[in-house]
Amino acid sequence: MAKSKFEYVRQFEAHDECLPHCWIVVRIDGKGFHRFSEMHNFVKPNDDRSLSLMNVSAEKVMTDFRDIVLAYGQSDEYSFVFRKSTTNYNRRASKLMTNLVSLFASTFVYNWTKHFPDTQLKYPPAFDARVVLYPSNRILRDYLSWRQVDCHINNMYNTCFWKLIQDAGMTTTEAQHRLKGTLSGDKNELLFSEFGVNYNNLPEIYRKGTLLVRSSVQETATKTVPNKNGDGTMEETFQRKRYITETLYTDIVGDKFWREHPEILGEDS
Amino acid sequence: MAKSKFEYVRQFEAHDECLPHCWIVVRIDGKGFHRFSEMHNFVKPNDDRSLSLMNVSAEKVMTDFRDIVLAYGQSDEYSFVFRKSTTNYNRRASKLMTNLVSLFASTFVYNWTKHFPDTQLKYPPAFDARVVLYPSNRILRDYLSWRQVDCHINNMYNTCFWKLIQDAGMTTTEAQHRLKGTLSGDKNELLFSEFGVNYNNLPEIYRKGTLLVRSSVQETATKTVPNKNGDGTMEETFQRKRYITETLYTDIVGDKFWREHPEILGEDS
Amino acid sequence: MAKSKFEYVRQFEAHDECLPHCWIVVRIDGKGFHRFSEMHNFVKPNDDRSLSLMNVSAEKVMTDFRDIVLAYGQSDEYSFVFRKSTTNYNRRASKLMTNLVSLFASTFVYNWTKHFPDTQLKYPPAFDARVVLYPSNRILRDYLSWRQVDCHINNMYNTCFWKLIQDAGMTTTEAQHRLKGTLSGDKNELLFSEFGVNYNNLPEIYRKGTLLVRSSVQETATKTVPNKNGDGTMEETFQRKRYITETLYTDIVGDKFWREHPEILGEDS
Amino acid sequence: MAKSKFEYVRQFEAHDECLPHCWIVVRIDGKGFHRFSEMHNFVKPNDDRSLSLMNVSAEKVMTDFRDIVLAYGQSDEYSFVFRKSTTNYNRRASKLMTNLVSLFASTFVYNWTKHFPDTQLKYPPAFDARVVLYPSNRILRDYLSWRQVDCHINNMYNTCFWKLIQDAGMTTTEAQHRLKGTLSGDKNELLFSEFGVNYNNLPEIYRKGTLLVRSSVQETATKTVPNKNGDGTMEETFQRKRYITETLYTDIVGDKFWREHPEILGEDS
Repeated sequence: MAKSKFEYVRQFEAHDECLPHCWIVVRIDGKGFHRFSEMHNFVKPNDDRSLSLMNVSAEKVMTDFRDIVLAYGQSDEYSFVFRKSTTNYNRRASKLMTNLVSLFASTFVYNWTKHFPDTQLKYPPAFDARVVLYPSNRILRDYLSWRQVDCHINNMYNTCFWKLIQDAGMTTTEAQHRLKGTLSGDKNELLFSEFGVNYNNLPEIYRKGTLLVRSSVQETATKTVPNKNGDGTMEETFQRKRYITETLYTDIVGDKFWREHPEILGEDS
Repeated sequence: MAKSKFEYVRQFEAHDECLPHCWIVVRIDGKGFHRFSEMHNFVKPNDDRSLSLMNVSAEKVMTDFRDIVLAYGQSDEYSFVFRKSTTNYNRRASKLMTNLVSLFASTFVYNWTKHFPDTQLKYPPAFDARVVLYPSNRILRDYLSWRQVDCHINNMYNTCFWKLIQDAGMTTTEAQHRLKGTLSGDKNELLFSEFGVNYNNLPEIYRKGTLLVRSSVQETATKTVPNKNGDGTMEETFQRKRYITETLYTDIVGDKFWREHPEILGEDS
Repeated sequence: MAKSKFEYVRQFEAHDECLPHCWIVVRIDGKGFHRFSEMHNFVKPNDDRSLSLMNVSAEKVMTDFRDIVLAYGQSDEYSFVFRKSTTNYNRRASKLMTNLVSLFASTFVYNWTKHFPDTQLKYPPAFDARVVLYPSNRILRDYLSWRQVDCHINNMYNTCFWKLIQDAGMTTTEAQHRLKGTLSGDKNELLFSEFGVNYNNLPEIYRKGTLLVRSSVQETATKTVPNKNGDGTMEETFQRKRYITETLYTDIVGDKFWREHPEILGEDS
Repeated sequence: MAKSKFEYVRQFEAHDECLPHCWIVVRIDGKGFHRFSEMHNFVKPNDDRSLSLMNVSAEKVMTDFRDIVLAYGQSDEYSFVFRKSTTNYNRRASKLMTNLVSLFASTFVYNWTKHFPDTQLKYPPAFDARVVLYPSNRILRDYLSWRQVDCHINNMYNTCFWKLIQDAGMTTTEAQHRLKGTLSGDKNELLFSEFGVNYNNLPEIYRKGTLLVRSSVQETATKTVPNKNGDGTMEETFQRKRYITETLYTDIVGDKFWREHPEILGEDS
């Protein structure tokens, strides 16, 4: 195509390649989801429809971005981890985060009705995204631990908070006051003694968040080949490896998970 | 909320505030829209449904981001111009571009059915986005000129190309060959002599793209106030200024538009 | 030259080109010059030898970096302004600031003895440097005003402070206490009534700092050319324009200076 | 001190903190040292005076910047490695590189006469500097290997080149032509068969460059303490650890050096 004399304005575009050999984490976060959840009558403290919609949106992202090795989500946020050596979009931070977050957002709306069959989407939601670089496996694991510990702390608080309101009839202010200064053990005790709830029996998806990893499955497929007489075709079966996204609700703070899945981070430190 | 020992990983987050006193342009661009337009049977060379869907998505963005003074769109791209002195998201580039692009994408899907009532959306689309800074009014205008000249060049080419295919029955390769090396005048002539089309009579939205600007309207509104006797309420009318988004298809390369709308860029250079 | 397999480590080098069309200011600042000035018995509050050494070092920088249009210095700092459109070192911030600051530092040491003939340099000094971008003439002028106002405020304070110590025999603490909360007018009055000093009569280099600008002079030069007979050479005179660095001690906060030197910033805003 | 209305210009200063937990390498490089070495009659291919002056300048830098764990120099360049966890200047890249490079340059001039007693310094030299981040020990070692292999390749070439000129009387062009396309083995053979030089017997400082590392020495020192009678003082000896800079000319490409000095990079990867 012809170029115009205005072309020079492209020189103002910034380079933003990520430092090589670092884990690239893109974390997205719902914008104003407190209001969004109220407008759409989310069940408190955890809405299964919303969690499943977040998870299918994240799976779509993993399907389209082949260099994501792992994703972790909780509440209205999701972290996607690109492998250290990815050259996706030449590691340009803007390209990675904007393509990813817009795909997530459009998938979220696209699948709304399947997950919220009885609730109309009142307005299209936005998500923000950021790119963070982590130079070592240890620090990447600390990042993921940070998010999972955050999930645990928030979920335990919210579980107590909504029990006090929904079952004990407290006001918001009363519930906040009742929980002020309580430690984890206090909250466990409160749930058990006042509401007969054993926190550790609550669904793992609430307590641990959702982890998406790739795993390969061996599968039998068929293809059409010329037949032996050379006068037609025949079906032939063959074995192939296929990558699928596996969904786990499991602890990623301790070493056990990582010892059992050494392939995710790789040998390299 | 309690903080965990993993909190330190936040230190790895980068600062990306935009240089003060520069125009901040966020340009978004459909990802793989060549394929997307084929999968959804877009009318060639211009699909009115797609253009109107792009435009309503951009209007939604302008409504939510109050510091955007102007937006310009053509084909599957849109540029949004934030005023020089905006402090939206503390001028953090990541925040601006990701919130904006995800809102655009989710609005696009949200409104799909209204604009494509007979076409099912086959998959959710993604858009990329970038932030570019322009230090002066002159250069910002050159940026906008660059995009509008690009619109003109592409539209003229595509108009010829699809005429040759749709009306003259050429193949893709034949049409490309026919247009190779032709200048603007040649294409004008081709359209006129071979297809009886006067290029300048084509709809302006195709030839110039779409410009969204804010304008204020004076309107009469009513509010409920205590009545004079103090024993009830009454309706009272008052005047107020309201900002609306105005849609224009007009030349922004020359000086005329800017002379007539001095408030958009402001006095300040 | 042969390349090794280790070459890949160059990919970790960052791009740091300055945004085009912005003024590039490199400001350098003596590191630990409080101690440095004590170790070398600088005259207080202003040491003429130090000021002249700073100034010749800055002149050397201006001579070697042809795209610097103006430099402003006071105390142990100097600001160098590159013209907006410079492509020196491809506008790479690291290159600009490190080449400049190391030349300044080595020139400072190189010329020490000329300016401090009776004082041995006890150790080599360091300077830091930073690059700051200013998108418009107005803001660049505000930057320069900031530095000159800083010079004025510091110099007035220091003049009083050292008078109180040197002439009135106060201790450091007493002098600080005496000056606490005083405004500019108070300090003027103090100098006049207690020490008979009219602040405005102090040398301008102390009160206003030093401004270096380029100016062109027309000069007559000679060159050797073939003589008319073609059998030898002759001297021929010709006129040429030569750029020299001019040193000024003048107000750059107000408009007067800039009106009289429109060529420095240029017409362009 | 009072603040002026111009203070706002500080908002234009950029944040440039280095990513945490990465090795920070500052590499400095003589500007125009080809000309500088000619102007000061450097011995070719290696000038011992210049090498020792570079090395004492680097030692001064290591003395003043306590977080540098290692420095490596060759020819007119030097690389300084800050430990991963340094918080020196809050890891701000500009501060680190400019303070360092200006100290190096001023030390170079300061010590010139000691190393070049018979050669006057004709003009003050400049050096550039850059900051590069390396996220792992392996990549940092590859960086250092890159520089040492570069030293080896250049030194072998230059040794041959200057032998051909100084001993065999070739012109520059002839020498370049003679060496074109030769491999390492060819050059070894050329030196041995034509000039009786065994390359491996040349001084290690030429072939390997200079490595500066810190090592601690246990030393006996004395301090003055009250004597036992409480009526005077006495000298008392005590042991202390002191860090000194050690100079080595050794291979850092292979594993041997790093196995023998595990403390330099630390256990952490």
